[in-house]
Amino acid sequence: MNTRVIKSGGELVIFEKEKLFRSLKSAGANEDEINRVWHKIKPKIEAENISTRKIFQLAFNTLKKQRAGIAARYKLKNAMRELGPSGYYFEKLMSHVFMNAGYKTKTNLILSGKCINHEVDVQFTNQSEVNWAECKFSNKAGQKVDVKVALYFSARFMDLKSAGEVSAKPRNYFPWLISNNRFTKDAMDYGECAGIKMLSWDYPNKDSLKKLIEKHNAYPITCLTSITLNEKKLLLSEDVIVCNQIDINKLEKTLHLSPVRKSKIIEECKWLS
Amino acid sequence: MNTRVIKSGGELVIFEKEKLFRSLKSAGANEDEINRVWHKIKPKIEAENISTRKIFQLAFNTLKKQRAGIAARYKLKNAMRELGPSGYYFEKLMSHVFMNAGYKTKTNLILSGKCINHEVDVQFTNQSEVNWAECKFSNKAGQKVDVKVALYFSARFMDLKSAGEVSAKPRNYFPWLISNNRFTKDAMDYGECAGIKMLSWDYPNKDSLKKLIEKHNAYPITCLTSITLNEKKLLLSEDVIVCNQIDINKLEKTLHLSPVRKSKIIEECKWLS
Repeated sequence: MNTRVIKSGGELVIFEKEKLFRSLKSAGANEDEINRVWHKIKPKIEAENISTRKIFQLAFNTLKKQRAGIAARYKLKNAMRELGPSGYYFEKLMSHVFMNAGYKTKTNLILSGKCINHEVDVQFTNQSEVNWAECKFSNKAGQKVDVKVALYFSARFMDLKSAGEVSAKPRNYFPWLISNNRFTKDAMDYGECAGIKMLSWDYPNKDSLKKLIEKHNAYPITCLTSITLNEKKLLLSEDVIVCNQIDINKLEKTLHLSPVRKSKIIEECKWLS
Repeated sequence: MNTRVIKSGGELVIFEKEKLFRSLKSAGANEDEINRVWHKIKPKIEAENISTRKIFQLAFNTLKKQRAGIAARYKLKNAMRELGPSGYYFEKLMSHVFMNAGYKTKTNLILSGKCINHEVDVQFTNQSEVNWAECKFSNKAGQKVDVKVALYFSARFMDLKSAGEVSAKPRNYFPWLISNNRFTKDAMDYGECAGIKMLSWDYPNKDSLKKLIEKHNAYPITCLTSITLNEKKLLLSEDVIVCNQIDINKLEKTLHLSPVRKSKIIEECKWLS
């Protein structure tokens, strides 16, 4: 008989084991680890109508006991939300993603357009490219960036690109609209058609935000399960945004770590840097 | 000695008689009527530190006793706010302004752009022109339309103008951004530079929203002082938006008017149609 589970909307659907396995695999768990998680949580899934959210939590907690770094990756989406409530640290994170990808980056710029000055959240450049990114952060699940944002950003990009000083430098200019959640259908349709590079949590499939973070090892420090939320805030305020920035000796002084916690953090960071 | 009055921000400034006279004159009062208002309210202005708001009210009430139509014009700005709380009737009003100016008008359209469909608040056309207007209504004094609105509207206009069916018809296309209040400086700078026709309560000087309403006799029925707010709402819901739409015989049936009120309304409408 098929096991049924409850989706976030309250809908009863048939449980898909493959989805759970894929998510565990993409978090870096090997076959052996995945099977161990599965045997641990299988009875709970089969016992009653359990929510998909609960399954995620169970899998996460089971994985956490096995290996800290993997669990940290698995909670990346929630970790993104912990960068809030403002979008400030999300912009900083994006800067690190593109920095790790080999670009020179700047955040929070004021640049002259043809008509007026504009704020640019993240600029990332190399010899041939100038990329301007508008970052839309939300710490609520399910919120989508709407078409007005895509429209105003498109007009802003055109105005920046038409500025005299820009057109004097013959490089390629690209607009990016980045969301840690998703875009509405209209925003997607317009953005794609207007030549905006649309980057969201799971779009585009091969180079989604999630995959770029993994590919360029730019895990936010909020992924760490071995330090508290207050400690994360302290580190963020000191401009430690991603795990590969962590210097364990410096960290030891800031957070007053016991030897046990120190080794836990080192273990997690090893998997996230 | 100079008389001092209190501005809305609490600041004490020297009273400028000329400003009051100009506002009365632009409401349609003649020299004689202005002088009568002035002699009536002068002692109150001189007696103590009175607010500019209070002066407006005094002048308005004094004028109202003299001639209903003039007072109704004088309160046009407040009458605009009474069209709220949503922007629905403001769009209808703008449609009447441009209809009275000789255009064919439509409100609340969905039109195809090159990339996506867009809502257009008011479209007004003639043989050679197609005008698309985005109407921004606010019923709070002092609220300004910001630059993001001007930017998204600019991108929306470009997308509409790039649509295949549009480019097949060789007419002139104009974007209008209309506010019953004002725009921020950035919105103005961008809009003007990007070729948007910016229309606000008092801009552009010679063809501001206020002056267009006067010029084309499109006074909203909320200007009338002889009917109540509830009666205004009833009429609006029956699609009677401007005073020159009023048919006194029909109105008599809808509102159950006494002969005194009937003649008052006729007198006001004479001045507002």
